Amino acid sequence: MKIISINAGSSSLKFSLFDMRNESVIASGVFERIGIEGGKYSIKYNGEKLQCEVNLDTHTDAVEILLDKLVELRIIRSLNEIDGVGHRLVHGKDKYKESVVITDEVIHDLDNFREFAPLHNPANILGIEAFRKVLPSVKMVGVFDTAFHQTMNEEAYMYPVPYSWYSDYGVRKYGFHGTSHRYITEVMKGILGKDNFRLISCHIGNGGSITAIKDGKCVDTTMGFTPLSGIMMGTRSGDIDPSIIPYVMEKEGKNASEVVDDLNKKSGLLGMSSYSNDMRDILEECEKQNERCLLAKVKYVRRVVDYIAQYYVLLGGVDAICFTAGVGENSAPFRREVCEKLACLGIKIDLDLNNKRGEVTKISTDDSLISVYVVPTDEELMIARDTLRLIGG
Amino acid sequence: MKIISINAGSSSLKFSLFDMRNESVIASGVFERIGIEGGKYSIKYNGEKLQCEVNLDTHTDAVEILLDKLVELRIIRSLNEIDGVGHRLVHGKDKYKESVVITDEVIHDLDNFREFAPLHNPANILGIEAFRKVLPSVKMVGVFDTAFHQTMNEEAYMYPVPYSWYSDYGVRKYGFHGTSHRYITEVMKGILGKDNFRLISCHIGNGGSITAIKDGKCVDTTMGFTPLSGIMMGTRSGDIDPSIIPYVMEKEGKNASEVVDDLNKKSGLLGMSSYSNDMRDILEECEKQNERCLLAKVKYVRRVVDYIAQYYVLLGGVDAICFTAGVGENSAPFRREVCEKLACLGIKIDLDLNNKRGEVTKISTDDSLISVYVVPTDEELMIARDTLRLIGG
Repeated sequence: MKIISINAGSSSLKFSLFDMRNESVIASGVFERIGIEGGKYSIKYNGEKLQCEVNLDTHTDAVEILLDKLVELRIIRSLNEIDGVGHRLVHGKDKYKESVVITDEVIHDLDNFREFAPLHNPANILGIEAFRKVLPSVKMVGVFDTAFHQTMNEEAYMYPVPYSWYSDYGVRKYGFHGTSHRYITEVMKGILGKDNFRLISCHIGNGGSITAIKDGKCVDTTMGFTPLSGIMMGTRSGDIDPSIIPYVMEKEGKNASEVVDDLNKKSGLLGMSSYSNDMRDILEECEKQNERCLLAKVKYVRRVVDYIAQYYVLLGGVDAICFTAGVGENSAPFRREVCEKLACLGIKIDLDLNNKRGEVTKISTDDSLISVYVVPTDEELMIARDTLRLIGG
Repeated sequence: MKIISINAGSSSLKFSLFDMRNESVIASGVFERIGIEGGKYSIKYNGEKLQCEVNLDTHTDAVEILLDKLVELRIIRSLNEIDGVGHRLVHGKDKYKESVVITDEVIHDLDNFREFAPLHNPANILGIEAFRKVLPSVKMVGVFDTAFHQTMNEEAYMYPVPYSWYSDYGVRKYGFHGTSHRYITEVMKGILGKDNFRLISCHIGNGGSITAIKDGKCVDTTMGFTPLSGIMMGTRSGDIDPSIIPYVMEKEGKNASEVVDDLNKKSGLLGMSSYSNDMRDILEECEKQNERCLLAKVKYVRRVVDYIAQYYVLLGGVDAICFTAGVGENSAPFRREVCEKLACLGIKIDLDLNNKRGEVTKISTDDSLISVYVVPTDEELMIARDTLRLIGG
């Protein structure tokens, strides 16, 4: 059984081809600058990497080249080997609580929900339609970023704003990174050998969100109506005093969308440090006692600690905390600082174990009251697994 | 020694006259609808209450009537008995870290800072100027709502937004209710018999803020650039996803200030319940299983619990939690629900003690890991104390 996982952006298309017998990646790659001059793609397979420059007018061009190359490079013998295509879909609102076989209704809904994810949902549709054209007989599955969070109760997802904003316009917490948080939950089920446990999953990448999970279900999460909210991120502010928006609008002669754009793209680590949105750069500068980078790092750590503390109490104590995604998987100093600030909850980490990389590792000491893990996330695999399950593989 | 504490709003003036020998209130009252038709005032003294209707064109009119009445009603023998006037001032930015004798510079600064408190600072100036006219020789002291919070470090007061918003426009966390949180801290010093302890002060009224205090100093607080942020309040949302603002602007054809106005005046308990901003009304409806009021209550409790959890970890554990102000002092069900949700931190409250009202009460059990208190706040007394101290009484 071979499954392709697809993540289509407005001008890009990432893929991973899985052999589901052993869940191995046979090939993966990315098509970039679709619809823009200077298109290119790369395909990794069998220890090799093919890179080409070619104009890509549409997502369909990318899919056609991808499938041709898979056969040409003998990654597969024929297109018949592809049993299913799984698409990462961003916003399924409160309608999609789990992954689904893609039908016309799903595409229609994605389009309907586009105001909630104006960049992503239309791009997701382009990806789906490209595969429909090129592989019309292969079943496709949609895996929503928002789905895992739809188990939140009203108390968690409602904002304390005029109720009509919810009932008339759909203003509520939706949550994102759901596929990653669900993957982490699955891994932890295996490690802990049970289904019932309280988990705080920290997906800390350039975007970041933290999710409180009880008995396998999301109880609360830091991203909300949009991915801007919650913790401080690479370029996003997370939650701030909303009054700042009209104040800055007046100071800078900007409209509200422009200020919110600054909160999405010029804030977070980048905004505080005026140096970089990348934790590696920030940590390097911290070594040189760059004050603004030190401030950015300490605030970033603190916002993570703030939400872990909240979710610890919300869950009534926790069994495990997991770190994943770019910063969470790779930055030992970040994890150390977070855990040190959580010492009063009885957390202790082992500084040697904390330095391991790239594999599932328990980094807490045996006498830590809460187990702390690093778990590399794999959203592509989660998408492939859902696809296999739903096409009846 | 007699001191008047004054809280001047844009169309009101509240006062309390203290005999500082025993810190007792000799008289108190309020002038309302200043500059608006239908002015009126009330003065409580010696177990009696005088109520009158009279046009009040300016704050000076109110102060003249007040002082006349104090003598006429024989509350004081002559104006010479008034040794000082203390004014509640709202916004002193990061310049005023403590109370000060009012000079022309202070008035000038209040005016300069008015964009940070557009309703309050100009009203505070009106109050000061009225007393300057009527009691030109009496010393006056200004007590800032923001002052107590100026011990926060950069890590606490800086937002993860473009740095220039701070350096150019003063966007940072200022904090409010400082006089109340400072009063609670003073009371707790007396109760605990020491200066060094970790305290979470919960000022929960129609507005509300929670402050983390270490060794008598504010370490962090929930209100921020403005009093809109932090916990959910009677009519205010507290922190939300900032992206909601441009989204609702488009849906309702409003500008950003109008939407922020809705977040200030039509959100919180009122917004979620569509019923009332008053916890007493909400609790009454909860008895009748009004679903929206139940939702509003549970969310309100949760936001308080969220921040107590955060500050517990920030302080590395706490010695005491205090509840004060309208809801905090008077709503036993509210306190019970908050404390029950904090059970995993080792907090236990005594349900009988929790039902006491109107006096300093320890409501936690002897085996609670954290002591929980109800402490009625008294900002007016704090203002009078500062005034006495600064005029050299």
